[in-house]
Amino acid sequence: MDYTFNQTVRISFDIMQEWSKRLYMKMGMTEKDALTVAHVLVTADARSVYSHGCMRTSIFYNRITAGGTSATAQPAIDRERGATALIDGHNAMGQVVGVYAMNIAIEKAKQHGTSAVSIVNGNHNGTCAYFAEMALKENMIGLMWTNGGPVMAAWGGAERQLGNNPFGIAIPCLKRKPIVLDMAQSVVARGKIVMARKTKTPIPETWALDVNGKPTADAEAGYWGTVRPVGDYKGSALSTVISMLTAVLSGSAYGPTNVDLYEEPDKAQNIGQLMQVIDISAFTDVTAFKKRMDDYVDYLKNGKKAEGFTEIYVPGELEHNMFDKQMKEGITYPVEVIREYYTLCDKLGVEKMVQIPK
Amino acid sequence: MDYTFNQTVRISFDIMQEWSKRLYMKMGMTEKDALTVAHVLVTADARSVYSHGCMRTSIFYNRITAGGTSATAQPAIDRERGATALIDGHNAMGQVVGVYAMNIAIEKAKQHGTSAVSIVNGNHNGTCAYFAEMALKENMIGLMWTNGGPVMAAWGGAERQLGNNPFGIAIPCLKRKPIVLDMAQSVVARGKIVMARKTKTPIPETWALDVNGKPTADAEAGYWGTVRPVGDYKGSALSTVISMLTAVLSGSAYGPTNVDLYEEPDKAQNIGQLMQVIDISAFTDVTAFKKRMDDYVDYLKNGKKAEGFTEIYVPGELEHNMFDKQMKEGITYPVEVIREYYTLCDKLGVEKMVQIPK
Repeated sequence: MDYTFNQTVRISFDIMQEWSKRLYMKMGMTEKDALTVAHVLVTADARSVYSHGCMRTSIFYNRITAGGTSATAQPAIDRERGATALIDGHNAMGQVVGVYAMNIAIEKAKQHGTSAVSIVNGNHNGTCAYFAEMALKENMIGLMWTNGGPVMAAWGGAERQLGNNPFGIAIPCLKRKPIVLDMAQSVVARGKIVMARKTKTPIPETWALDVNGKPTADAEAGYWGTVRPVGDYKGSALSTVISMLTAVLSGSAYGPTNVDLYEEPDKAQNIGQLMQVIDISAFTDVTAFKKRMDDYVDYLKNGKKAEGFTEIYVPGELEHNMFDKQMKEGITYPVEVIREYYTLCDKLGVEKMVQIPK
Repeated sequence: MDYTFNQTVRISFDIMQEWSKRLYMKMGMTEKDALTVAHVLVTADARSVYSHGCMRTSIFYNRITAGGTSATAQPAIDRERGATALIDGHNAMGQVVGVYAMNIAIEKAKQHGTSAVSIVNGNHNGTCAYFAEMALKENMIGLMWTNGGPVMAAWGGAERQLGNNPFGIAIPCLKRKPIVLDMAQSVVARGKIVMARKTKTPIPETWALDVNGKPTADAEAGYWGTVRPVGDYKGSALSTVISMLTAVLSGSAYGPTNVDLYEEPDKAQNIGQLMQVIDISAFTDVTAFKKRMDDYVDYLKNGKKAEGFTEIYVPGELEHNMFDKQMKEGITYPVEVIREYYTLCDKLGVEKMVQIPK
């Protein structure tokens, strides 16, 4: 949420989605799949979760051209029970696999009340929130868990053995915006340490451990070390378990066999993921449930504020607010992302849909 | 794990279970139900999770005699779909409801591959780990989530609006002990702040907020304030969502309608809980999965250690070690627990099964 950009360009959701779609189509994707990827990415940008937005397009381009990810592959069901499925992502783009898997999870929850869908041979697919939220339109609760590349030490350790392993949970309200939790297990995103290293700024000791596993205020040492888990042993333990629920359950890469998204563009990532859906109507009256959700959110927001705070935000609220604002005013993009899109346009022969102001 | 007791008594699992069972039978429970409660409590003690063990018996006695919890009520299915059930706990003892609900969740996962079972009119039921682990013997993954009494502020707030809301996840291994995560959302258990207040010891500022929502090193101020969530806004957000998955989904008490376990023994707690089970065989070969689990645990444990650490522990490992030790040598109980049992024996006419050494 706290990005600072030098030069920015304001672009409408629709234009950025169309532009992204055209680029992905030129990378070999069908229009439908290209639109899926574009929608996932631009939605993240609109929420100001830029780390998971269009700035990923050049990385995905590198992976597709290097052969690490397939632009044309399609996911399929590998194994199935009433309320479960194992989806083989066939190394297709993660967003395509994720949407496919979550739609199956939703259909299964309609029939059985709940479902669990696991992904093998998947790829990084954007924010967990996006997929968890797919369940909302069906009055269901969505959960998504994913494994990630190693950036964190197991508690007591000094090397990168665990991913940051985010998960997302989305729950509908009646009049209020849905509750959407999307959290990784580190105190801060590694990007903040990368940024502090660039600007030669010290970091709080709670952010990172050095290569010897000691807390450090030196961004350089933190960069070469590991991100510190929330609650120390708690975040490390949760990250461990998420790896097991995702990568180990599905038979995907874990620990030593993880592939780096950036550094190994020619290798399949084989990321494991888990989607779960809970149909609210299986447990309670849907409207009564949503009313209780509203009441609870009202109760939390009306609580006494801490010194220095003027508002209590519930999970997802800041992102909803930013989304509404940017859908109205346009999405603020750093020019770097647009320059990357220019480069891709030149390579792929796509029209530049946005001008960078002088 | 880090309790220090003055005087202790070593007691075998079987004797403490039998003694507890007799007490609960005299409180009106059937032998089967009394044994269930006793087993849950003594298992926690054997693992050195004393906060959730037999020291709860006098609290449960108070609640049963005051009418807040029923010794005789039985849980039942209120609403059901293929892979889901809403269990009405009918205000029976939480352990009885928990075992009943988890058994249904396991049966449903056998049929459909996964399941979700929600509890309304439940009670505090011990450690989440106990119920999650019930799935292990069926080669399944167990998850349990529970709502708890308010001890934590929503992030940005200064009053107790959220529970500590623990959850447990248990996953089987092949040769290694199962992975068992059981974590609440505060940096430390509130009991540690209570203890520091008693001994007039300062506390780290990461533990608690005062009544104005400011971090405090004063245990007295922390006692009257709120426990600090892990990762600040992250722990607060996760706790919020767990309340929704448990209390709001099932229609149990949440926020302002929560009942204090200790201070309101005559009122039903109406705690909401959620059990989820994932049948491993629905996704992958069970033995291959367990082998991957062993490999992953080996990989983590063999990682480079941080300065000051000699071993990396995986989730549940310390508790397993303590359990094995105490099953062999007897469980170390503080005399205070035995004295409480003496008082209950006098009140209920039960034989004192253990002597306190002079």
